[in-house]
Amino acid sequence: MNSLLSRYLDIRRHTTGLAAPLSPEDCTAQSMPDASPAKWHLAHTTWFFETFVLEAHETGFAPFHPAFRVLFNSYYHGVGARHPRPQRGLLTRPALAEVLAYRADVDARMVRLLPTLMHDAAPCALVELGLQHEQQHQELLLTDIKHLLSCNPMHPAYHPAQPAAAEREAAQPLVWHAFAGGLCEMGHAGAGFAFDNERPRHRVYLQPYALASRLVTNAEFAAFVDDGGYRNPAHWLAEGWDWRAAQALEQPLYWQRVASAWHEFSLAGLRPLQAEQPVVHLSYFEADAYARWAQARLPTEAEWEHAAAPLFSGTAGGEARSDMLHPRAARGVGLEQLAGEVWQWTQSSYAPYPGFRVAEGAVGEYNGKFMVNQYVLRGGSCATPPGHARASYRNFFPATARWQFAGVRLAKDLG
Amino acid sequence: MNSLLSRYLDIRRHTTGLAAPLSPEDCTAQSMPDASPAKWHLAHTTWFFETFVLEAHETGFAPFHPAFRVLFNSYYHGVGARHPRPQRGLLTRPALAEVLAYRADVDARMVRLLPTLMHDAAPCALVELGLQHEQQHQELLLTDIKHLLSCNPMHPAYHPAQPAAAEREAAQPLVWHAFAGGLCEMGHAGAGFAFDNERPRHRVYLQPYALASRLVTNAEFAAFVDDGGYRNPAHWLAEGWDWRAAQALEQPLYWQRVASAWHEFSLAGLRPLQAEQPVVHLSYFEADAYARWAQARLPTEAEWEHAAAPLFSGTAGGEARSDMLHPRAARGVGLEQLAGEVWQWTQSSYAPYPGFRVAEGAVGEYNGKFMVNQYVLRGGSCATPPGHARASYRNFFPATARWQFAGVRLAKDLG
Amino acid sequence: MNSLLSRYLDIRRHTTGLAAPLSPEDCTAQSMPDASPAKWHLAHTTWFFETFVLEAHETGFAPFHPAFRVLFNSYYHGVGARHPRPQRGLLTRPALAEVLAYRADVDARMVRLLPTLMHDAAPCALVELGLQHEQQHQELLLTDIKHLLSCNPMHPAYHPAQPAAAEREAAQPLVWHAFAGGLCEMGHAGAGFAFDNERPRHRVYLQPYALASRLVTNAEFAAFVDDGGYRNPAHWLAEGWDWRAAQALEQPLYWQRVASAWHEFSLAGLRPLQAEQPVVHLSYFEADAYARWAQARLPTEAEWEHAAAPLFSGTAGGEARSDMLHPRAARGVGLEQLAGEVWQWTQSSYAPYPGFRVAEGAVGEYNGKFMVNQYVLRGGSCATPPGHARASYRNFFPATARWQFAGVRLAKDLG
Amino acid sequence: MNSLLSRYLDIRRHTTGLAAPLSPEDCTAQSMPDASPAKWHLAHTTWFFETFVLEAHETGFAPFHPAFRVLFNSYYHGVGARHPRPQRGLLTRPALAEVLAYRADVDARMVRLLPTLMHDAAPCALVELGLQHEQQHQELLLTDIKHLLSCNPMHPAYHPAQPAAAEREAAQPLVWHAFAGGLCEMGHAGAGFAFDNERPRHRVYLQPYALASRLVTNAEFAAFVDDGGYRNPAHWLAEGWDWRAAQALEQPLYWQRVASAWHEFSLAGLRPLQAEQPVVHLSYFEADAYARWAQARLPTEAEWEHAAAPLFSGTAGGEARSDMLHPRAARGVGLEQLAGEVWQWTQSSYAPYPGFRVAEGAVGEYNGKFMVNQYVLRGGSCATPPGHARASYRNFFPATARWQFAGVRLAKDLG
Repeated sequence: MNSLLSRYLDIRRHTTGLAAPLSPEDCTAQSMPDASPAKWHLAHTTWFFETFVLEAHETGFAPFHPAFRVLFNSYYHGVGARHPRPQRGLLTRPALAEVLAYRADVDARMVRLLPTLMHDAAPCALVELGLQHEQQHQELLLTDIKHLLSCNPMHPAYHPAQPAAAEREAAQPLVWHAFAGGLCEMGHAGAGFAFDNERPRHRVYLQPYALASRLVTNAEFAAFVDDGGYRNPAHWLAEGWDWRAAQALEQPLYWQRVASAWHEFSLAGLRPLQAEQPVVHLSYFEADAYARWAQARLPTEAEWEHAAAPLFSGTAGGEARSDMLHPRAARGVGLEQLAGEVWQWTQSSYAPYPGFRVAEGAVGEYNGKFMVNQYVLRGGSCATPPGHARASYRNFFPATARWQFAGVRLAKDLG
Repeated sequence: MNSLLSRYLDIRRHTTGLAAPLSPEDCTAQSMPDASPAKWHLAHTTWFFETFVLEAHETGFAPFHPAFRVLFNSYYHGVGARHPRPQRGLLTRPALAEVLAYRADVDARMVRLLPTLMHDAAPCALVELGLQHEQQHQELLLTDIKHLLSCNPMHPAYHPAQPAAAEREAAQPLVWHAFAGGLCEMGHAGAGFAFDNERPRHRVYLQPYALASRLVTNAEFAAFVDDGGYRNPAHWLAEGWDWRAAQALEQPLYWQRVASAWHEFSLAGLRPLQAEQPVVHLSYFEADAYARWAQARLPTEAEWEHAAAPLFSGTAGGEARSDMLHPRAARGVGLEQLAGEVWQWTQSSYAPYPGFRVAEGAVGEYNGKFMVNQYVLRGGSCATPPGHARASYRNFFPATARWQFAGVRLAKDLG
Repeated sequence: MNSLLSRYLDIRRHTTGLAAPLSPEDCTAQSMPDASPAKWHLAHTTWFFETFVLEAHETGFAPFHPAFRVLFNSYYHGVGARHPRPQRGLLTRPALAEVLAYRADVDARMVRLLPTLMHDAAPCALVELGLQHEQQHQELLLTDIKHLLSCNPMHPAYHPAQPAAAEREAAQPLVWHAFAGGLCEMGHAGAGFAFDNERPRHRVYLQPYALASRLVTNAEFAAFVDDGGYRNPAHWLAEGWDWRAAQALEQPLYWQRVASAWHEFSLAGLRPLQAEQPVVHLSYFEADAYARWAQARLPTEAEWEHAAAPLFSGTAGGEARSDMLHPRAARGVGLEQLAGEVWQWTQSSYAPYPGFRVAEGAVGEYNGKFMVNQYVLRGGSCATPPGHARASYRNFFPATARWQFAGVRLAKDLG
Repeated sequence: MNSLLSRYLDIRRHTTGLAAPLSPEDCTAQSMPDASPAKWHLAHTTWFFETFVLEAHETGFAPFHPAFRVLFNSYYHGVGARHPRPQRGLLTRPALAEVLAYRADVDARMVRLLPTLMHDAAPCALVELGLQHEQQHQELLLTDIKHLLSCNPMHPAYHPAQPAAAEREAAQPLVWHAFAGGLCEMGHAGAGFAFDNERPRHRVYLQPYALASRLVTNAEFAAFVDDGGYRNPAHWLAEGWDWRAAQALEQPLYWQRVASAWHEFSLAGLRPLQAEQPVVHLSYFEADAYARWAQARLPTEAEWEHAAAPLFSGTAGGEARSDMLHPRAARGVGLEQLAGEVWQWTQSSYAPYPGFRVAEGAVGEYNGKFMVNQYVLRGGSCATPPGHARASYRNFFPATARWQFAGVRLAKDLG
């Protein structure tokens, strides 16, 4: 339990630290309905503990502020009414300072409560879920603030020192790693934490396949753009082409030409595009179109997990990085960049595993109800908190989502 | 080849027969972008033969009308420009009579050409594809005209004699049929025709499961409606709930109350709802919500095919039915109603089978480019031409599509 | 009364004649919510007599078809429910033949009824209103069918013989006619028919002004286009510019370049643009932008009426024209083209005259409730039935309407 | 010139004072495209002086920040590019503190420059225009912040002490004041400042009319609501009814029932509705519907000005009010409440006066290009800075605008 308490304090503190470079104004604005204000992330993660842990277990529970139950409920019908998602950016009150006070208050109460729960598995599991949930919002806070800052024509940086303008990294050849497939298992089985959507572990049958040793690079993706990749419907899924055409998309979300050279908006501001770094902020449609153009395809999530599982423990959990918050080039020709750089689109629709059951009560709304019209991403990104991801971890977004740290690892059929 | 010619003539004649009860006005209107005018179906299926067969193989080919290449191209970028889909209903010219002349002209040319192609597999395969394509449009012509007529407050019938007002059919209990699963095969392997999306046949691993002996009935679905099924988000996928709420849906597409009794619009006009007939015209979202409410789930397409394949040959191909164009009640407690009543939503996202390859050229656009954000339906409906469907047949529509003859067969996990 | 009966028969017959060149398909389609199908015009004008005259005065009245009361009600809340306007094109039933039977039936009943009403002013006034209403729909039938046919990439003609390809007409200089203004009267006063919106006649004070002798020509408007008129916001009202930009408009509605030469879609099909004919099918925004570019302005409706009233009786009522359905070039330098060519946008918002009163009952909805966010047009067009317009006649459309026969006569301030 | 300098400093200081109760978060958010963030108002008014005065007249002009020329340009195409209006709320940078520094910098430079311009009429006129412009934005800052705060379900107050919860004020009867009309003059003629849209003064002819002695009260409007006024299309303009129905409007913008009693959101938060205070925050459509229901009409702007002009000097310029920022009840039966309470919708479309000319250069875009599809309001409101309005002052908004301090004074025809 001590470790749960110290994990609680570490993770909670990390969230506040992520907001530290931001002004109250930065924390309040919402750039699109899909993104939330940083202040909302700070409050909603706190609401999760207040609503699902304190309300159930704290003696003499009284809410910090009665209105917060509605204001900071994301999508839990079981908890009651919700402030409309597209209007989160209109909540200039409570002020950032008051939200930080809300965090401090809930933290103090959690610190008092946690030791009393140490022999009770159910609330401890909820606390752990709350911490995993908060880590997910840590990444969202960064993707959302990146999108917000990108809407400002002055290209402001979240953190100017990060990442340093990298020297040109060495190109690594793309090598194909072959896998025989056959009857395999996928999904989480161990004792450690996993989300419900990673369970149950179950058998799948895989045909022989190969995965690329590394992620698709900016240089490779620029070749697709230069080849007219955004103007040729032959590369695109029909719905993707219509979407691209309606929005007149011609390049990845954060790319723009300055003079004639490609630049990329990053959390350190606008910078020249680095050829060997992984291309990032692609939608599923763009990732898929690139793969077709490259005469390859996206992997399935089963293929990805089968290949990554033996290696993942080594690469995950990443030490503190000096160039954090932007993906780095590959360093070799093994199965590189499985975690810590960009989420990797799979061709797998987000669906329940055989035997999947949702939890009882409002937390049952956590994952299951989103299993339609979304696609699974695997691996974890430079914005994912160290230690958060697993080989069996399933991230998911609609095929049009571009503002996440998402890229491509190619796959192909064998034999 | 003789049989291909006679199949050609039979299928072409059947299409024209489907339009026979319709006026030129009925054949011209388009009720929504998803649906096409009957006249457009008549012309587009003809365009398919003219463009993919005659243009390639007819000596001295000249188009029937040069503008038709664009007007009746559905979605083939490889063929060139296309008339905008939402404006198909504005094509009052060519008149229905001219479209029928177009059909007659192409048929005459095909009759001359077909014997010359009999030893050439590739064009014969294209003719067969054109016939299968035409059969698909035969069903669409019926679903689209049903939707159009349903928009008319006078509830006009497509064919008043069809279906006869049925006497109350006997209720059949819902019995669960168990399947052990394990390592199975799915997909088409034989010599007969199948679409590219049914191939290649491949292995899948299935957990033990059970399928309902029959389809969900109107009476069962009415119980869901009466239980507030359309007002309780707990039953719904999140995106489905938002969609339902935005459109204020409260019942299936063609249901309405007259006095206080449920009625259903059919191709024979508005009729009292028949309790034991299968519920039809559900979206995936409604089908899935019903299944959750009923403490079951939708089957996967692999489960469905594995269960249906041994039985399908017996039920498919159906003889001419006197009550055609509306689904009938189950007759027993075996694995009933696999074909010929309603398409059955599966929980499987429409995706390529392992090793799937698209064909070269414009016909490569037939199936592959739609493999995103759609869900697979299996079985065939009362509007599917006899002999058209197979156990491996994959129909697919977006999760919001309601105007197809789509219903539900429940599944559940075992063991 | 005899004359009312013969007027009734003439006008009703004229409407049917306008639909004669059209197929049932042409008569059924609706190209946009603003336009109605020809069949709907045929039925709605009949509905007007059935609902407002026969229902009130016919002994033993029974409706021709009970559903028509709703189907063909345009916007009269006082009459009850209405079929949704954007779905008029989905009414494939009743068929055109049945609508023509409806017309014949109501006409026969009106012929029996009319002689019995001859000494009763109120119903006679309603009949007259119905005839004026029908004449308005005669023009709308033409503008709506023109829009529908223009959506067909084959450019079909409504009536190929009309208008003949004109020889190049002689250019007439634009001469300014000066008016001293002062205290004037406007509005209808006489005994003849006028709509309620033309009354009461009342005093207005006009500053000195001048009106152009003729309408703006295609050649003049092409100079505006060539000068970048559609790309320079300085010429446009702010709302007009935003509308233009959102739709990427670059020329009048029916203009298109063939090779490099301007052509114009007309009721006789696509033809080379005639330099000296009046530009037609402009929105208010385009008319106003042109006027600013030409360092002039649109007239007010009071200015137009004051100038036109003394001359109008001579030009109105126009004899049958061989080149009907397209505007002709000016023939001189007097105050030309006041009627019979194109409606002329004024800068006057459509508003009630001082002392305006709406009629009692549902016909009170005829005009008054539209007096907001619309602009007045004066004069009458080549599609206006002869004898229908007056100097005091007020036509009105939103500032974005382009599908009417609307053009520009310039005005300027004097002194 | 001294007085211009001291006016400059007073007005600029007043703007900053209006923002003083607001947090940086409050100042940044934008609740809808029609409204702007307070920070944007602070910056844009400063941009006006920097762009139109300093840039033209300051020796060695250098912009405070080059990006601000685009960021804070509202709608002046003549100045160049503009940040998209709906995205003003995404400008979290510059921070409020930096915008205040921008204000201070421009003020310091203006204080140096102004004495050098004192004999030069043109720049002095631009400075005066900038001050009048800033006063307009003072009112908009209040209406926009009110709208923003109203979107927060906690009902936060802009300034809790303002207005004091009023004791119930005495009801004043509505008395009709008659005016003979005839040939009158309207528009601004004197030497003092007026906007270009108030000129030139010109003759108009008015029929006899009457104006209500006071504004319509909350009690009166509540009677309209209770009488089903929002559910009966007979009271509404057709476009207004469609707008109302599409948004399901049932009461004025800031009204809501708490228990069963009407409350109203104000700049002091949510308060019980005060029966005798003027109804406020009506659209034109609601104002017009009320007037029809009350068997009266809205006045024309000429009628309003003709009646108000002799009295306006006495009421305008209002002394500092203790209950500022919310309209007060009438105090008598004279022609009351002409200024300082709510803007009064007129039935007059916003149009150029005869002989109106726009100014040369970018400031010519100030008023003229908005003269379409808007309606004129007269009088001034409790949020209008004292001394800003005049009898000839023309405010204008689209017929759907509800977030301004707009209400109704009734009129009717006489004789």
